[in-house]
Amino acid sequence: MTGFVSFVSSGPGDPELLTLKAVARLGAADAVLFDDLSAGPILAHASPGADLVGVGKRAGRPSPKQDHVSRLLVDYAATGARVVRLKSGDSGIFGRLEEEIAALRDAGIGYEIIPGVPSACAAAAAAGIPLTRRLTARRVQFVTGADVTGRLPEGLNWAALADPQATTVVFMGKGSFPALAAGLIGHGLPPDTPALLAEAVGHADQRLTRASIANLAGRLAGTGPAPALILYGPLAD
Amino acid sequence: MTGFVSFVSSGPGDPELLTLKAVARLGAADAVLFDDLSAGPILAHASPGADLVGVGKRAGRPSPKQDHVSRLLVDYAATGARVVRLKSGDSGIFGRLEEEIAALRDAGIGYEIIPGVPSACAAAAAAGIPLTRRLTARRVQFVTGADVTGRLPEGLNWAALADPQATTVVFMGKGSFPALAAGLIGHGLPPDTPALLAEAVGHADQRLTRASIANLAGRLAGTGPAPALILYGPLAD
Repeated sequence: MTGFVSFVSSGPGDPELLTLKAVARLGAADAVLFDDLSAGPILAHASPGADLVGVGKRAGRPSPKQDHVSRLLVDYAATGARVVRLKSGDSGIFGRLEEEIAALRDAGIGYEIIPGVPSACAAAAAAGIPLTRRLTARRVQFVTGADVTGRLPEGLNWAALADPQATTVVFMGKGSFPALAAGLIGHGLPPDTPALLAEAVGHADQRLTRASIANLAGRLAGTGPAPALILYGPLAD
Repeated sequence: MTGFVSFVSSGPGDPELLTLKAVARLGAADAVLFDDLSAGPILAHASPGADLVGVGKRAGRPSPKQDHVSRLLVDYAATGARVVRLKSGDSGIFGRLEEEIAALRDAGIGYEIIPGVPSACAAAAAAGIPLTRRLTARRVQFVTGADVTGRLPEGLNWAALADPQATTVVFMGKGSFPALAAGLIGHGLPPDTPALLAEAVGHADQRLTRASIANLAGRLAGTGPAPALILYGPLAD
Protein backbone atom coordinates (compact mmCIF):
# COMPACT_ATOMS: atom_id res chain seq x y z
CA MET A 1 0.00 0.00 0.00
CA THR A 2 1.63 3.17 -1.20
CA GLY A 3 0.45 6.70 -0.79
CA PHE A 4 0.29 9.45 -3.33
CA VAL A 5 1.52 13.02 -3.29
CA SER A 6 -0.36 15.96 -4.82
CA PHE A 7 1.76 19.04 -5.28
CA VAL A 8 -0.96 21.63 -4.84
CA SER A 9 -0.36 25.25 -5.86
CA SER A 10 -2.18 27.48 -3.39
CA GLY A 11 -1.96 30.72 -5.35
CA PRO A 12 -0.78 34.05 -3.99
CA GLY A 13 -2.43 33.88 -0.57
CA ASP A 14 -6.01 35.06 -1.14
CA PRO A 15 -8.06 31.93 -0.30
CA GLU A 16 -10.50 32.88 -3.08
CA LEU A 17 -7.70 32.36 -5.60
CA LEU A 18 -7.50 28.66 -4.82
CA THR A 19 -8.68 26.45 -7.67
CA LEU A 20 -11.58 24.02 -7.25
CA LYS A 21 -9.08 21.18 -7.72
CA ALA A 22 -6.86 22.50 -4.92
CA VAL A 23 -9.88 22.65 -2.61
CA ALA A 24 -10.83 19.07 -3.53
CA ARG A 25 -7.30 17.74 -2.90
CA LEU A 26 -7.06 19.56 0.45
CA GLY A 27 -10.40 18.12 1.54
CA ALA A 28 -9.33 14.57 0.68
CA ALA A 29 -5.82 14.71 2.17
CA ASP A 30 -4.65 12.67 5.15
CA ALA A 31 -1.67 15.01 5.60
CA VAL A 32 -0.85 18.52 4.38
CA LEU A 33 2.75 19.74 4.34
CA PHE A 34 2.77 23.51 3.96
CA ASP A 35 5.20 26.43 3.77
CA ASP A 36 4.60 29.54 5.88
CA LEU A 37 3.64 31.57 2.84
CA SER A 38 0.69 29.38 1.94
CA ALA A 39 -0.74 28.81 5.40
CA GLY A 40 -3.64 30.52 7.16
CA PRO A 41 -7.22 30.38 5.88
CA ILE A 42 -6.24 28.08 3.01
CA LEU A 43 -5.69 25.27 5.50
CA ALA A 44 -9.32 25.57 6.57
CA HIS A 45 -10.14 23.50 3.47
CA ALA A 46 -8.28 20.51 4.94
CA SER A 47 -10.46 17.88 6.64
CA PRO A 48 -10.53 18.09 10.46
CA GLY A 49 -8.71 14.77 10.78
CA ALA A 50 -5.76 15.67 8.54
CA ASP A 51 -2.24 16.14 9.86
CA LEU A 52 -1.11 19.72 9.17
CA VAL A 53 2.67 19.95 9.07
CA GLY A 54 4.49 23.28 8.71
CA VAL A 55 7.79 22.99 6.87
CA GLY A 56 8.19 26.73 6.62
CA LYS A 57 10.75 28.31 4.38
CA ARG A 58 10.89 32.09 4.37
CA ALA A 59 13.20 34.49 2.64
CA GLY A 60 16.25 35.41 4.67
CA ARG A 61 15.54 33.06 7.55
CA PRO A 62 17.14 29.74 8.26
CA SER A 63 14.80 27.07 6.89
CA PRO A 64 14.51 23.33 7.33
CA LYS A 65 16.91 21.54 5.05
CA GLN A 66 15.32 20.59 1.72
CA ASP A 67 16.43 17.01 2.46
CA HIS A 68 14.34 17.05 5.59
CA VAL A 69 11.20 18.16 3.72
CA SER A 70 11.73 15.51 1.06
CA ARG A 71 12.17 12.82 3.70
CA LEU A 72 8.99 13.89 5.52
CA LEU A 73 7.09 13.73 2.24
CA VAL A 74 8.36 10.22 1.48
CA ASP A 75 7.73 9.04 5.05
CA TYR A 76 4.12 10.25 5.03
CA ALA A 77 3.38 8.77 1.62
CA ALA A 78 5.01 5.47 2.62
CA THR A 79 2.31 5.00 5.27
CA GLY A 80 -0.26 4.91 2.46
CA ALA A 81 -1.43 8.47 3.09
CA ARG A 82 -2.86 10.86 0.55
CA VAL A 83 -0.41 13.71 1.00
CA VAL A 84 -0.84 17.30 -0.17
CA ARG A 85 2.37 19.28 -0.54
CA LEU A 86 1.07 22.84 -0.57
CA LYS A 87 3.21 25.48 -2.29
CA SER A 88 2.39 29.14 -2.70
CA GLY A 89 1.79 30.73 -6.10
CA ASP A 90 2.23 28.22 -8.92
CA SER A 91 4.39 25.40 -7.61
CA GLY A 92 6.29 25.14 -10.89
CA ILE A 93 7.63 28.70 -10.60
CA PHE A 94 10.47 29.03 -8.10
CA GLY A 95 8.91 26.26 -6.00
CA ARG A 96 11.99 23.98 -6.08
CA LEU A 97 9.64 21.20 -7.03
CA GLU A 98 12.35 19.20 -8.80
CA GLU A 99 14.12 18.27 -5.56
CA GLU A 100 11.01 16.83 -3.95
CA ILE A 101 9.96 15.08 -7.16
CA ALA A 102 13.37 13.40 -7.37
CA ALA A 103 12.97 12.05 -3.83
CA LEU A 104 9.51 10.66 -4.64
CA ARG A 105 10.77 8.99 -7.82
CA ASP A 106 13.65 7.40 -5.93
CA ALA A 107 11.15 6.02 -3.43
CA GLY A 108 8.73 4.82 -6.15
CA ILE A 109 5.91 7.08 -4.96
CA GLY A 110 3.39 8.50 -7.44
CA TYR A 111 2.62 12.19 -7.66
CA GLU A 112 0.69 14.82 -9.58
CA ILE A 113 1.14 18.58 -9.97
CA ILE A 114 -1.89 20.86 -9.62
CA PRO A 115 -1.06 24.23 -11.20
CA GLY A 116 -2.19 27.47 -9.60
CA VAL A 117 -2.30 31.23 -9.91
CA PRO A 118 1.28 32.57 -9.91
CA SER A 119 1.79 35.44 -7.48
CA ALA A 120 3.21 37.41 -10.44
CA CYS A 121 -0.16 37.22 -12.21
CA ALA A 122 -1.99 38.20 -9.02
CA ALA A 123 0.29 41.20 -8.46
CA ALA A 124 -0.26 42.46 -12.00
CA ALA A 125 -4.02 41.92 -11.76
CA ALA A 126 -4.18 43.76 -8.42
CA ALA A 127 -2.44 46.72 -10.04
CA GLY A 128 -4.66 46.56 -13.13
CA ILE A 129 -1.67 45.81 -15.36
CA PRO A 130 -1.63 43.21 -18.15
CA LEU A 131 1.71 41.37 -18.16
CA THR A 132 1.79 41.46 -21.96
CA ARG A 133 0.64 44.19 -24.34
CA ARG A 134 0.39 43.85 -28.07
CA LEU A 135 3.43 45.45 -29.77
CA THR A 136 4.92 47.03 -26.61
CA ALA A 137 5.28 44.12 -24.13
CA ARG A 138 5.54 41.04 -26.27
CA ARG A 139 7.50 38.93 -23.82
CA VAL A 140 7.06 38.37 -20.08
CA GLN A 141 9.72 36.80 -17.90
CA PHE A 142 10.02 35.72 -14.29
CA VAL A 143 13.41 35.70 -12.56
CA THR A 144 14.67 35.36 -9.03
CA GLY A 145 16.55 38.30 -7.54
CA ALA A 146 18.35 36.31 -4.88
CA ASP A 147 20.62 33.29 -4.83
CA VAL A 148 20.91 31.09 -1.72
CA THR A 149 22.95 33.82 0.01
CA GLY A 150 20.27 36.47 -0.70
CA ARG A 151 22.44 38.35 -3.20
CA LEU A 152 21.82 38.98 -6.89
CA PRO A 153 22.59 35.71 -8.75
CA GLU A 154 25.74 35.58 -10.91
CA GLY A 155 25.63 35.14 -14.67
CA LEU A 156 22.36 36.97 -15.32
CA ASN A 157 21.29 37.34 -18.96
CA TRP A 158 21.40 41.14 -19.19
CA ALA A 159 20.24 41.22 -22.81
CA ALA A 160 17.08 39.45 -21.68
CA LEU A 161 16.59 41.49 -18.50
CA ALA A 162 17.33 44.96 -19.91
CA ASP A 163 14.89 44.52 -22.82
CA PRO A 164 12.49 47.50 -22.97
CA GLN A 165 9.92 45.35 -24.80
CA ALA A 166 9.53 42.79 -22.02
CA THR A 167 7.67 42.84 -18.72
CA THR A 168 9.88 41.34 -16.02
CA VAL A 169 8.77 40.06 -12.64
CA VAL A 170 11.53 39.66 -10.06
CA PHE A 171 10.79 37.19 -7.26
CA MET A 172 12.52 37.63 -3.89
CA GLY A 173 14.33 40.64 -5.27
CA LYS A 174 13.66 43.42 -2.77
CA GLY A 175 17.06 43.32 -1.09
CA SER A 176 19.05 43.04 -4.30
CA PHE A 177 17.02 45.46 -6.44
CA PRO A 178 19.50 48.34 -6.16
CA ALA A 179 22.19 46.08 -7.66
CA LEU A 180 19.78 44.77 -10.30
CA ALA A 181 18.62 48.26 -11.29
CA ALA A 182 22.22 49.46 -11.60
CA GLY A 183 22.94 46.54 -13.93
CA LEU A 184 19.80 47.18 -15.98
CA ILE A 185 20.59 50.87 -16.42
CA GLY A 186 24.22 50.00 -17.21
CA HIS A 187 22.92 47.70 -19.97
CA GLY A 188 20.80 50.42 -21.50
CA LEU A 189 17.37 50.18 -19.87
CA PRO A 190 16.13 53.76 -19.30
CA PRO A 191 16.20 54.79 -15.59
CA ASP A 192 12.61 56.03 -15.91
CA THR A 193 11.31 52.59 -16.88
CA PRO A 194 8.14 52.02 -14.80
CA ALA A 195 8.38 49.67 -11.82
CA LEU A 196 5.92 48.28 -9.32
CA LEU A 197 6.78 46.92 -5.87
CA ALA A 198 4.11 44.43 -4.80
CA GLU A 199 4.26 43.32 -1.17
CA ALA A 200 2.07 40.71 0.56
CA VAL A 201 0.18 40.10 -2.69
CA GLY A 202 -3.17 38.44 -2.09
CA HIS A 203 -3.08 39.13 1.65
CA ALA A 204 -5.09 41.67 3.64
CA ASP A 205 -2.04 43.92 4.04
CA GLN A 206 -1.16 43.93 0.33
CA ARG A 207 0.84 47.04 -0.67
CA LEU A 208 1.46 48.24 -4.22
CA THR A 209 4.03 50.98 -4.86
CA ARG A 210 4.60 52.48 -8.29
CA ALA A 211 7.92 54.13 -9.14
CA SER A 212 10.61 54.16 -11.81
CA ILE A 213 13.36 51.54 -11.62
CA ALA A 214 15.90 54.21 -10.58
CA ASN A 215 13.62 55.67 -7.94
CA LEU A 216 12.63 52.28 -6.53
CA ALA A 217 16.30 51.26 -6.33
CA GLY A 218 16.98 54.36 -4.22
CA ARG A 219 14.09 53.63 -1.88
CA LEU A 220 15.07 50.00 -1.41
CA ALA A 221 18.76 50.62 -0.63
CA GLY A 222 19.57 48.82 2.61
CA THR A 223 16.35 46.78 2.66
CA GLY A 224 16.61 43.16 3.69
CA PRO A 225 15.11 40.20 1.86
CA ALA A 226 11.32 39.93 2.04
CA PRO A 227 8.61 38.07 0.16
CA ALA A 228 7.91 40.82 -2.35
CA LEU A 229 7.65 40.97 -6.12
CA ILE A 230 9.02 43.70 -8.33
CA LEU A 231 7.61 44.25 -11.82
CA TYR A 232 9.30 46.49 -14.38
CA GLY A 233 8.90 47.23 -18.05
CA PRO A 234 6.19 48.86 -20.19
CA LEU A 235 3.70 48.93 -17.29
CA ALA A 236 2.33 52.43 -17.84
CA ASP A 237 -1.12 52.96 -19.32
CA MET B 1 -26.53 53.50 -12.52
CA THR B 2 -23.36 52.08 -14.05
CA GLY B 3 -22.34 48.50 -14.41
CA PHE B 4 -19.06 46.90 -13.59
CA VAL B 5 -16.81 44.58 -15.55
CA SER B 6 -14.87 41.68 -14.06
CA PHE B 7 -12.15 40.36 -16.32
CA VAL B 8 -12.23 36.74 -15.18
CA SER B 9 -9.38 34.38 -16.07
CA SER B 10 -10.86 30.95 -16.70
CA GLY B 11 -7.61 28.98 -16.65
CA PRO B 12 -6.52 26.48 -19.29
CA GLY B 13 -9.89 24.82 -19.91
CA ASP B 14 -10.23 22.21 -17.16
CA PRO B 15 -13.26 23.48 -15.19
CA GLU B 16 -11.60 22.27 -11.97
CA LEU B 17 -8.82 24.80 -12.56
CA LEU B 18 -11.23 27.72 -12.13
CA THR B 19 -10.60 29.72 -8.97
CA LEU B 20 -13.26 30.12 -6.28
CA LYS B 21 -13.37 33.82 -7.15
CA ALA B 22 -14.01 33.08 -10.83
CA VAL B 23 -16.88 30.78 -9.87
CA ALA B 24 -18.35 33.49 -7.61
CA ARG B 25 -18.14 36.17 -10.30
CA LEU B 26 -19.71 33.87 -12.92
CA GLY B 27 -22.57 33.05 -10.56
CA ALA B 28 -23.28 36.73 -9.90
CA ALA B 29 -23.00 37.97 -13.49
CA ASP B 30 -25.88 39.39 -15.53
CA ALA B 31 -23.89 38.87 -18.72
CA VAL B 32 -20.86 36.76 -19.65
CA LEU B 33 -18.83 37.59 -22.75
CA PHE B 34 -16.62 34.64 -23.60
CA ASP B 35 -14.07 33.54 -26.19
CA ASP B 36 -14.36 30.09 -27.79
CA LEU B 37 -11.36 28.81 -25.92
CA SER B 38 -12.90 29.34 -22.51
CA ALA B 39 -16.41 28.11 -23.22
CA GLY B 40 -18.03 24.78 -22.45
CA PRO B 41 -18.48 23.44 -18.93
CA ILE B 42 -17.06 26.61 -17.40
CA LEU B 43 -20.20 28.49 -18.46
CA ALA B 44 -22.27 26.10 -16.35
CA HIS B 45 -21.24 28.27 -13.37
CA ALA B 46 -23.17 31.24 -14.79
CA SER B 47 -26.63 31.81 -13.36
CA PRO B 48 -29.52 30.53 -15.53
CA GLY B 49 -30.73 34.08 -16.19
CA ALA B 50 -27.40 35.44 -17.43
CA ASP B 51 -26.84 36.47 -21.05
CA LEU B 52 -24.05 34.31 -22.52
CA VAL B 53 -22.40 36.07 -25.44
CA GLY B 54 -19.77 34.37 -27.59
CA VAL B 55 -17.20 36.80 -29.01
CA GLY B 56 -14.95 34.01 -30.25
CA LYS B 57 -11.44 34.66 -31.35
CA ARG B 58 -9.52 31.66 -32.53
CA ALA B 59 -6.06 31.33 -33.98
CA GLY B 60 -5.99 31.55 -37.74
CA ARG B 61 -9.67 32.31 -38.19
CA PRO B 62 -11.26 35.64 -38.87
CA SER B 63 -12.45 37.02 -35.55
CA PRO B 64 -14.80 39.78 -34.54
CA LYS B 65 -13.01 43.10 -34.58
CA GLN B 66 -11.53 43.98 -31.20
CA ASP B 67 -13.47 47.25 -31.45
CA HIS B 68 -16.69 45.31 -31.64
CA VAL B 69 -15.90 43.33 -28.46
CA SER B 70 -14.97 46.50 -26.61
CA ARG B 71 -18.20 48.18 -27.70
CA LEU B 72 -20.31 45.21 -26.58
CA LEU B 73 -18.56 45.28 -23.19
CA VAL B 74 -19.27 48.99 -22.76
CA ASP B 75 -22.87 48.62 -23.98
CA TYR B 76 -23.65 45.83 -21.52
CA ALA B 77 -22.04 47.63 -18.59
CA ALA B 78 -23.83 50.87 -19.49
CA THR B 79 -27.17 49.14 -18.80
CA GLY B 80 -26.05 48.68 -15.18
CA ALA B 81 -25.18 45.03 -15.64
CA ARG B 82 -22.55 43.08 -13.77
CA VAL B 83 -20.51 41.85 -16.71
CA VAL B 84 -17.96 39.04 -16.71
CA ARG B 85 -15.44 39.14 -19.53
CA LEU B 86 -14.12 35.58 -19.52
CA LYS B 87 -10.65 34.99 -20.94
CA SER B 88 -8.78 31.71 -21.09
CA GLY B 89 -5.58 31.07 -19.13
CA ASP B 90 -4.50 34.13 -17.15
CA SER B 91 -6.10 37.15 -18.78
CA GLY B 92 -2.95 39.25 -18.29
CA ILE B 93 -0.87 36.95 -20.49
CA PHE B 94 -1.54 37.40 -24.22
CA GLY B 95 -5.17 38.28 -23.45
CA ARG B 96 -5.07 41.72 -25.12
CA LEU B 97 -6.64 43.06 -21.96
CA GLU B 98 -5.24 46.55 -22.51
CA GLU B 99 -7.52 47.28 -25.45
CA GLU B 100 -10.71 46.45 -23.57
CA ILE B 101 -9.52 48.26 -20.43
CA ALA B 102 -8.90 51.41 -22.46
CA ALA B 103 -12.47 51.30 -23.80
CA LEU B 104 -13.89 50.93 -20.27
CA ARG B 105 -11.78 53.80 -18.97
CA ASP B 106 -12.91 56.03 -21.82
CA ALA B 107 -16.52 55.19 -20.93
CA GLY B 108 -15.98 55.72 -17.19
CA ILE B 109 -16.84 52.12 -16.31
CA GLY B 110 -15.18 50.39 -13.36
CA TYR B 111 -13.45 47.04 -13.66
CA GLU B 112 -11.37 44.47 -11.84
CA ILE B 113 -9.00 41.75 -13.02
CA ILE B 114 -9.28 38.25 -11.51
CA PRO B 115 -6.04 36.38 -12.19
CA GLY B 116 -6.06 32.71 -13.14
CA VAL B 117 -3.98 29.68 -13.94
CA PRO B 118 -1.91 30.37 -17.08
CA SER B 119 -2.14 27.62 -19.68
CA ALA B 120 1.68 27.56 -19.64
CA CYS B 121 1.65 26.51 -15.97
CA ALA B 122 -1.02 23.89 -16.66
CA ALA B 123 0.94 22.44 -19.58
CA ALA B 124 4.11 22.13 -17.49
CA ALA B 125 2.19 20.60 -14.58
CA ALA B 126 0.48 18.07 -16.87
CA ALA B 127 3.90 16.98 -18.13
CA GLY B 128 5.35 16.87 -14.59
CA ILE B 129 7.84 19.61 -15.43
CA PRO B 130 8.69 22.54 -13.13
CA LEU B 131 9.07 25.75 -15.19
CA THR B 132 12.08 26.77 -13.10
CA ARG B 133 14.85 24.65 -11.61
CA ARG B 134 17.45 25.85 -9.19
CA LEU B 135 20.75 26.56 -11.03
CA THR B 136 19.68 25.14 -14.42
CA ALA B 137 16.43 26.97 -15.29
CA ARG B 138 16.62 30.23 -13.39
CA ARG B 139 14.43 32.24 -15.73
CA VAL B 140 11.09 31.44 -17.36
CA GLN B 141 9.64 33.45 -20.23
CA PHE B 142 6.43 33.48 -22.23
CA VAL B 143 6.42 34.72 -25.81
CA THR B 144 4.03 34.65 -28.70
CA GLY B 145 5.08 32.78 -31.83
CA ALA B 146 2.69 34.57 -34.17
CA ASP B 147 2.02 38.16 -35.10
CA VAL B 148 -1.36 39.25 -36.49
CA THR B 149 -0.53 37.57 -39.81
CA GLY B 150 0.30 34.24 -38.09
CA ARG B 151 4.00 34.51 -38.86
CA LEU B 152 6.93 34.71 -36.45
CA PRO B 153 7.03 38.28 -35.07
CA GLU B 154 9.83 40.58 -36.23
CA GLY B 155 12.45 41.96 -33.86
CA LEU B 156 12.64 38.98 -31.49
CA ASN B 157 15.22 39.16 -28.69
CA TRP B 158 17.35 36.18 -29.72
CA ALA B 159 19.74 36.54 -26.78
CA ALA B 160 16.75 36.07 -24.48
CA LEU B 161 15.14 33.26 -26.49
CA ALA B 162 18.27 31.20 -27.23
CA ASP B 163 19.35 31.15 -23.57
CA PRO B 164 20.04 27.54 -22.48
CA GLN B 165 19.38 28.52 -18.84
CA ALA B 166 15.77 29.62 -19.40
CA THR B 167 12.54 27.72 -19.86
CA THR B 168 10.56 29.30 -22.70
CA VAL B 169 6.87 28.85 -23.41
CA VAL B 170 5.76 29.84 -26.91
CA PHE B 171 2.06 30.70 -27.24
CA MET B 172 0.34 30.24 -30.63
CA GLY B 173 3.65 29.10 -32.06
CA LYS B 174 2.87 25.80 -33.76
CA GLY B 175 2.83 27.12 -37.31
CA SER B 176 5.94 29.26 -36.93
CA PHE B 177 8.03 26.86 -34.83
CA PRO B 178 10.21 25.67 -37.73
CA ALA B 179 11.27 29.31 -38.29
CA LEU B 180 11.70 29.90 -34.56
CA ALA B 181 13.79 26.74 -34.07
CA ALA B 182 16.03 27.67 -37.02
CA GLY B 183 16.62 31.07 -35.41
CA LEU B 184 17.32 29.54 -32.00
CA ILE B 185 19.81 27.04 -33.40
CA GLY B 186 21.41 29.80 -35.49
CA HIS B 187 21.86 31.79 -32.30
CA GLY B 188 23.61 28.93 -30.53
CA LEU B 189 20.90 26.94 -28.77
CA PRO B 190 21.78 23.24 -29.15
CA PRO B 191 19.47 21.39 -31.59
CA ASP B 192 18.94 18.65 -28.99
CA THR B 193 17.45 21.10 -26.46
CA PRO B 194 14.33 19.38 -25.04
CA ALA B 195 10.95 20.59 -26.27
CA LEU B 196 7.35 19.78 -25.41
CA LEU B 197 4.35 20.36 -27.66
CA ALA B 198 1.22 20.73 -25.53
CA GLU B 199 -2.08 20.71 -27.40
CA ALA B 200 -5.59 21.21 -25.97
CA VAL B 201 -4.11 21.68 -22.48
CA GLY B 202 -6.70 21.17 -19.76
CA HIS B 203 -9.19 19.60 -22.17
CA ALA B 204 -10.24 15.96 -22.47
CA ASP B 205 -8.23 15.54 -25.70
CA GLN B 206 -5.01 17.02 -24.26
CA ARG B 207 -1.91 15.79 -26.12
CA LEU B 208 1.69 16.12 -24.87
CA THR B 209 4.56 15.35 -27.27
CA ARG B 210 8.18 15.39 -26.17
CA ALA B 211 10.95 15.96 -28.70
CA SER B 212 14.07 18.04 -29.27
CA ILE B 213 13.67 21.51 -30.77
CA ALA B 214 15.20 20.31 -34.06
CA ASN B 215 13.02 17.24 -34.23
CA LEU B 216 9.84 19.11 -33.32
CA ALA B 217 10.58 21.73 -35.98
CA GLY B 218 10.80 18.95 -38.57
CA ARG B 219 7.50 17.45 -37.48
CA LEU B 220 5.69 20.78 -37.49
CA ALA B 221 6.82 21.93 -40.94
CA GLY B 222 3.75 22.89 -42.93
CA THR B 223 1.42 22.90 -39.90
CA GLY B 224 -1.12 25.68 -39.67
CA PRO B 225 -1.77 27.87 -36.64
CA ALA B 226 -3.52 26.12 -33.73
CA PRO B 227 -4.07 26.81 -30.05
CA ALA B 228 -1.02 24.91 -28.83
CA LEU B 229 1.87 25.71 -26.53
CA ILE B 230 5.49 24.79 -27.09
CA LEU B 231 7.91 24.62 -24.17
CA TYR B 232 11.66 24.35 -24.63
CA GLY B 233 14.72 24.58 -22.43
CA PRO B 234 16.15 22.47 -19.61
CA LEU B 235 12.99 20.34 -19.33
CA ALA B 236 14.64 16.95 -18.96
CA ASP B 237 14.73 15.23 -15.60
